[in-house]
Amino acid sequence: MTNPSAIQDSCPYQHEPVSSRSEKAIARKAFDAVLGRELHEVIQEAKRMANEIQQSSDLWDLEHYLTQRRKEIDREYDYRYSRLTHVFGRLLHENRLNEEELRGLGEDKLKSIRSLAKFLAEDAA
Amino acid sequence: MTNPSAIQDSCPYQHEPVSSRSEKAIARKAFDAVLGRELHEVIQEAKRMANEIQQSSDLWDLEHYLTQRRKEIDREYDYRYSRLTHVFGRLLHENRLNEEELRGLGEDKLKSIRSLAKFLAEDAA
Repeated sequence: MTNPSAIQDSCPYQHEPVSSRSEKAIARKAFDAVLGRELHEVIQEAKRMANEIQQSSDLWDLEHYLTQRRKEIDREYDYRYSRLTHVFGRLLHENRLNEEELRGLGEDKLKSIRSLAKFLAEDAA
Repeated sequence: MTNPSAIQDSCPYQHEPVSSRSEKAIARKAFDAVLGRELHEVIQEAKRMANEIQQSSDLWDLEHYLTQRRKEIDREYDYRYSRLTHVFGRLLHENRLNEEELRGLGEDKLKSIRSLAKFLAEDAA
C-alpha cells in the first residue's frame, strides 16, 4: 500500500494553503508586487515595440507579443490561496520574487516555497 | 420563370472579374494604396495608444484593438479578382477609395463598382 507521507515528500508543492490573516496580507502584497513588476516590464516593452513600428509586420508582432504575455500572465499569476505556495515557489525559482518579500509568512510555508523552488531548479538542470 | 437579366439588375455586384493585364495592374495599385492607408492609420493609432499606456487595462485595450483591426483587415481586404468589384464598391462607399484611383479600369467595371457603392449607400440609409 502507498504511504501517504512518502507521497507528500515526493511532491514538495502539495501543502496547506496560506491561511492566517496577516499571512494573507503578506502574501497578497508580495503577489501584487511581483505582478506589478511583470506588468511594468510588459508595458515598457510594448511602448518600445510600438515606437519602433515601421511596417505592418511590426504591428502584428506587437499584437502577438501582447496576446502571448496576457495568456502567460493569466496562467502564471493564479491568486488562489490553495495555489500560492506553488506560484511563489515558481516565482522564487525564476528570480521574479525576492524571498525578503515573503518575510512574515510562517516558517512552514516558507519551507514549502523554498522546497518547490529547489525542486524546479533541479528539474530544470 | 425567373428572368436572368432581372437577377443581374437586382444584384449589381455580380459581375465579371477585372481581368485584362493593365486593369489588373491598376486594380492592384489601387488596392495596395487603400490597404497601405488603412495600415498607416492602425500604426499611428497603435503608437498613440502605446504612448498613453499607464496601467495594465490600457495594455490589454491595445491588444484588443490590434486583434480587432487585424481580423477586420483580413476580412475586408480580399484580393481575389473575382471579389474585387465587391471590395472596391465597399471601399468607395466607405470613402476609403477615391474613384480617381480606379482610372483606367473599363467603364463596365467602374459602373459595377459605382453600382455596388450606391447599393450599399441606399442599404445603409
